Amino acid sequence: MLIVQKFGGTSVGDLERIANVANRVSESKKAGNDVVVVVSAMSGETNKLVEYAQHFSSNPNKAEMDMLLSSGERVTASLLSIALNEMGFPTVAMTGRKAGIVTNTQHTKARIEEINPKAIVSALDDGKIIVVAGFQGVNENGDITTLGRGGSDLSAVAIAGALKADLCEIYTDVSGIYTTDPRIEPRAKKLDKISYDEMLELASLGAKVLQNRSVEMAKKLNVNLVTRTSFSNEEGTLITKEENIMEAPLVSGIALDRNQARISLMGVKDRPGIASDIFNKLAINDINIDMIIQTKAYDGSTSIDFTVPVSDIKDAKEVVDSFIKTGEIKDDSYNEEICKVSVVGVGMKSHAGVAALAFSTMADNNININMISTSEIKVSMIIDEKYAELAVRGLHGAYELDK
Amino acid sequence: MLIVQKFGGTSVGDLERIANVANRVSESKKAGNDVVVVVSAMSGETNKLVEYAQHFSSNPNKAEMDMLLSSGERVTASLLSIALNEMGFPTVAMTGRKAGIVTNTQHTKARIEEINPKAIVSALDDGKIIVVAGFQGVNENGDITTLGRGGSDLSAVAIAGALKADLCEIYTDVSGIYTTDPRIEPRAKKLDKISYDEMLELASLGAKVLQNRSVEMAKKLNVNLVTRTSFSNEEGTLITKEENIMEAPLVSGIALDRNQARISLMGVKDRPGIASDIFNKLAINDINIDMIIQTKAYDGSTSIDFTVPVSDIKDAKEVVDSFIKTGEIKDDSYNEEICKVSVVGVGMKSHAGVAALAFSTMADNNININMISTSEIKVSMIIDEKYAELAVRGLHGAYELDK
Repeated sequence: MLIVQKFGGTSVGDLERIANVANRVSESKKAGNDVVVVVSAMSGETNKLVEYAQHFSSNPNKAEMDMLLSSGERVTASLLSIALNEMGFPTVAMTGRKAGIVTNTQHTKARIEEINPKAIVSALDDGKIIVVAGFQGVNENGDITTLGRGGSDLSAVAIAGALKADLCEIYTDVSGIYTTDPRIEPRAKKLDKISYDEMLELASLGAKVLQNRSVEMAKKLNVNLVTRTSFSNEEGTLITKEENIMEAPLVSGIALDRNQARISLMGVKDRPGIASDIFNKLAINDINIDMIIQTKAYDGSTSIDFTVPVSDIKDAKEVVDSFIKTGEIKDDSYNEEICKVSVVGVGMKSHAGVAALAFSTMADNNININMISTSEIKVSMIIDEKYAELAVRGLHGAYELDK
Repeated sequence: MLIVQKFGGTSVGDLERIANVANRVSESKKAGNDVVVVVSAMSGETNKLVEYAQHFSSNPNKAEMDMLLSSGERVTASLLSIALNEMGFPTVAMTGRKAGIVTNTQHTKARIEEINPKAIVSALDDGKIIVVAGFQGVNENGDITTLGRGGSDLSAVAIAGALKADLCEIYTDVSGIYTTDPRIEPRAKKLDKISYDEMLELASLGAKVLQNRSVEMAKKLNVNLVTRTSFSNEEGTLITKEENIMEAPLVSGIALDRNQARISLMGVKDRPGIASDIFNKLAINDINIDMIIQTKAYDGSTSIDFTVPVSDIKDAKEVVDSFIKTGEIKDDSYNEEICKVSVVGVGMKSHAGVAALAFSTMADNNININMISTSEIKVSMIIDEKYAELAVRGLHGAYELDK
């Protein structure tokens, strides 16, 4: 098998942990696999460098930031390569450039445009273990770029795709994807498999293990992704295409997102296009709207309720205020004491009644549902935040995820 | 003027010192100069990375070491560029690769083969300050290389040569080149100017400010080199070609090298080629021989005395022992309690009596001279180490270097 293994910052957090990673990589190699390793910076290093830069400027040049930050992954890659070599395994450490990771020119948030895996393929042919510095690439001008948050995962998935690797293992301090957050529901079970689309829903709903960008790329390049822990030999969770999951459960998991706020606009002027005007202006200001409800009161006035991430409240309020000034909105209110619980499962596509069970579970627990949104594989409900744990545990039980 | 400024590890040792360097660079720029800056890693960083590597291997792969160690200079270059930019100066940070520093493939001790200053020239044309990560280059395979000890000085001199810069300033924690070590002779004076050849002699005789490699390259490329401190505005010492020094003093400086040992071989077999055999074998073992004296005793037996750096004694003893085994050398003795004092000056070329004054000064101070060697611009004497300071002060006074 050809395996790409990616180790995050905590997995390479100190020299002992790097030695531990070397052991793990060597075992994959000894088992007869070809191995490409992608590493992050040692945990804390990137933050340290960011602090250094901010000592000099609150808005440092982005090209310089890329040169600065890309050094952390290079240190880890060199050290891991040295450790493996000392254990008797021929290795080669590669920068993003050497690994053939070509990006666009958008410094600090570059997008991968192409992988030219020539050097990797040639070194694999020589029987070497390849250790790649993650998070970085090179643009058409030959300048170093970095890939933004979750960039090392992205390096690993892109390389796995280019090499048509059998597996891309993402090692973190979490042992896999769970049916729900085990801190809320101790009976949560680790999933053996989950589809890309389910993972995308779970990730965007707050599961922190993988970023959507990486899952999207894995889906596009058809990369079998495994997320597992580097701190034990526990099996992880395979993220793969739906067809590879023979008997998909009705529901795979319950997600909770506390990071939501509800904004209510009352007395919205009754003219055509007013809602469109408001939401366009919010979109221009990069404010992420999730759910929207528009209602007409008995007195004929219109109310619009919508949810945004808590961090966007301030920006949203500025937009709302501009409409209040012109008199097109009478009043507004903001509520951070809400959360979003979601039921995710590809089984919903073919089974009726999944959403109904969610609603009846809320009713059984005397939880009022404020807003609802659904997709083919997801039902999301906005409820008061104080009911968060109750709702998660109720749904987890109702869909028999602990079985 | 086009100026290349190089700042060493202590000059960029922490964030405050980097800010200080930014101020200094900005002043050169504001004075109307074009400025290229070359930086070392923050002091301590390179040692830390070496320790990390040695945690995993006592003999880490050299290509990996280059990838590892080159990161330190990149961090400094990025930070200094960010600092200057924040002060309102357009800048660009460059790696060795971007700066066009092409080396041979000898990792960790690469030699510069070529400088392609296209990117630097173009950025200078745009009015930018260029900040180059020193100590590093790229080989023909596109792999990162490092230049070994004193590598950042070398980067600066090579870039200055390629750009035909008016000046290459090397900033350290020492304010220039002195007539002798001020810790031994407080009346030592800083030299305004010194020729390349004198500097080469002084450097190889123990003056730590500049490595011979950099001075040799400066001489070859005809780069006007200034060594000065980054901690004050004190003028430094210009190292330039002899023709640029209008009135060269007879003697420029007195050097002291305590790092010498004397090896005496007694009862050396009287056959043709024996000395050549011994010194060939020492050379093959990379042992640096400095002075040699061969004497014939009244009884007809031959003695050979020579000096080596203290660190080479052990290896030299092994070679000597192999001749003792075969009976070609009867006896040996080792003496570390010696030192070498040298009088250096281009003025010697045209003035007689310089060496004689050195010898008579030793005699006046009742110091016995064990061995002597001379070159066109240098007289070196091996004496007992206990007379080191006495000799240095005596010679400093005799040549009126305190005047």
